[in-house]
Amino acid sequence: MEFTVNLPYFKKAISIVSNIVSAKTTLSLLTGVKLVASADKLTLIGSNADVIIQKDIPKYMDGKQVLEVYQPGSIILSAKYLSDLVSKLPGEIHIKVNEHDRVTIQSEEVITTFNGMNPDDYPTVPSVKEISRVQLASNELAEIIKQTGFAVSKNESRPVLTGVQFSLKDNELIAVATNSHRLALRKQKVRTGDNCTCIIPSNTLQELTKIIGTGSTPINVSISEKHIAFEAELTTLYSKLIEGNYPDISTLVPAESKTILTLDTKNLLNGIDRARLFASDRKNNNIHIESEDSSMMKISSNSTEIGNIEETQAIYSIEGEKQFKIALDGNLIVDALKVIKEELVMISINGSIRPVLMQPKGNNNYLHLISPVRSYETANT
Amino acid sequence: MEFTVNLPYFKKAISIVSNIVSAKTTLSLLTGVKLVASADKLTLIGSNADVIIQKDIPKYMDGKQVLEVYQPGSIILSAKYLSDLVSKLPGEIHIKVNEHDRVTIQSEEVITTFNGMNPDDYPTVPSVKEISRVQLASNELAEIIKQTGFAVSKNESRPVLTGVQFSLKDNELIAVATNSHRLALRKQKVRTGDNCTCIIPSNTLQELTKIIGTGSTPINVSISEKHIAFEAELTTLYSKLIEGNYPDISTLVPAESKTILTLDTKNLLNGIDRARLFASDRKNNNIHIESEDSSMMKISSNSTEIGNIEETQAIYSIEGEKQFKIALDGNLIVDALKVIKEELVMISINGSIRPVLMQPKGNNNYLHLISPVRSYETANT
Repeated sequence: MEFTVNLPYFKKAISIVSNIVSAKTTLSLLTGVKLVASADKLTLIGSNADVIIQKDIPKYMDGKQVLEVYQPGSIILSAKYLSDLVSKLPGEIHIKVNEHDRVTIQSEEVITTFNGMNPDDYPTVPSVKEISRVQLASNELAEIIKQTGFAVSKNESRPVLTGVQFSLKDNELIAVATNSHRLALRKQKVRTGDNCTCIIPSNTLQELTKIIGTGSTPINVSISEKHIAFEAELTTLYSKLIEGNYPDISTLVPAESKTILTLDTKNLLNGIDRARLFASDRKNNNIHIESEDSSMMKISSNSTEIGNIEETQAIYSIEGEKQFKIALDGNLIVDALKVIKEELVMISINGSIRPVLMQPKGNNNYLHLISPVRSYETANT
Repeated sequence: MEFTVNLPYFKKAISIVSNIVSAKTTLSLLTGVKLVASADKLTLIGSNADVIIQKDIPKYMDGKQVLEVYQPGSIILSAKYLSDLVSKLPGEIHIKVNEHDRVTIQSEEVITTFNGMNPDDYPTVPSVKEISRVQLASNELAEIIKQTGFAVSKNESRPVLTGVQFSLKDNELIAVATNSHRLALRKQKVRTGDNCTCIIPSNTLQELTKIIGTGSTPINVSISEKHIAFEAELTTLYSKLIEGNYPDISTLVPAESKTILTLDTKNLLNGIDRARLFASDRKNNNIHIESEDSSMMKISSNSTEIGNIEETQAIYSIEGEKQFKIALDGNLIVDALKVIKEELVMISINGSIRPVLMQPKGNNNYLHLISPVRSYETANT
């Protein structure tokens, strides 16, 4: 194998694929990046146990030649050393591999020799049959992940809850995540004749957000029984899916509510964020939200050791019962409000022990449910 | 105590003094910030076991009123909670303390109540007698710290080596730091009739660099037997000094050298930085620098497990013996080169076992000594 590659393009590609490569894996092949040079492109592949990322550098990019392959071939190089080295090289890179997998990397006056690894045993990209397909813009996909990914369970005891469920049905994608204390649901209109349901590991989606841009590049998503692939023009991410049955969430969203508040999203976020300061000790991790009068509400929290905080905020509008009082975990409210970009948010309250529903005003594509905290006070109501 | 203070000025002052306050100290008073309101100013004080930082907010700043004291007094508030809270408040802050040390902080519609601590037992600012004084510009002081502070010993077994020695003599300040493997020395012309020597804890100097700006504000330095104070217009830092005798370094700097190389500082830094990549395992933590011919030299390192790297660099000029070969710890060279801002650096070599002297070309105010690594190869020369 022998090729010359433009430094900035090579550097960028290495940083994308080496991102998921762990330095601490028992399988030493997986500490490496696989380079495959063919006549008209260089492919870089990085992987961990669950995800494979593949990035192509074609011969021409942005109207100039960035690659010249003299001899096709493949090799695996330590991801850590390769990305460290390449970040420090001065210019165009020439790579040559000899028959003993010794790799010479030259850049101007700097000559490096690496012990490469045999590429034959590297994990192969999963071949997928009986596939469902859908196309999403990268910014849509990024927003779907942002609005659901944070709500997954961190606890491995129920693996299905550590992923985000994607369901395709009737030209709609529904993404759902829950840790059983909170639930985030995001809908997106799509064009596909395919119907399917799968559970994508949360880590896969976090890796995906790192590599898809914020533009509106089309991302082709292919789903088989055990794998999913996200494919942009030159970058593809393959991942295992989580097997198992996702809980039925269709009955969880309340059909009607005692009180529906409409509030300023940013003011509420700031108020809850302040009140969290005093809600950090274990006995009092809850924030109280209650009606003051029909146009004002009070947000408060109290720590016997440190002190207490309270503030009043204007209610933009209120429907149903004017009296309300609920205790919620401030961190859960902040997480949900942070991903609502609309100016107004609707909070639906059904007494102090039923989940609170949060939705951006005028947007039915996103909703969030939060179970209240059962404090000594609210447990008796 | 009761006062109203402008939010941005208060926020800034809290961040400066709370920086050194540790949340994990056995003396709970030291987890707090002390606020002292007098008729025409508010003083904030933060401290740890070794350092006290004091910051004043006068009634008027930048041409406007930023403080109104209604009733003088003092209180201690948790640094962590106060700085978290203040960073999240919406506007001007009104603080009132009642007779039971309960503190009410109001900002627009947000009302917080804190349990304050009695200020009477808070450590007092050291009173200093028999003082030496010197004035430095903040950017000079910052550069002196930057060029010496990194060279102190991290090992507490010889406490004097964990500090930087400041010597005032004949209108010159000499700052020295060494960990016995390397030494950094920086001279600065100053105007003072005072002569003295003291050892300043490295941590004190790191805290100082955080609070002095990069401008040329005058900093008044006062040194007594056991304490040092750095005083800017509204901010003062007091610190304990390290007691003990600093080693005599006057004989360490070689009077003459076998070979003196002049090299491009940035090229050398980049070359050594690259070579470090392969010098990380214990057996081969050295980088070899040797002559190729009278105009070129080779920088190389070798790791049996990973690979090797070598590059040639042009020698700008060479005096003395044209043949040289030395092995050095790459990290020590990089540390020293990073704080040399001059374009050219002079490297004086006295054989492979004597310390190497590094100095910026055309600037006698900074020098750095590095002891060579004695590898199997060089041990026999």
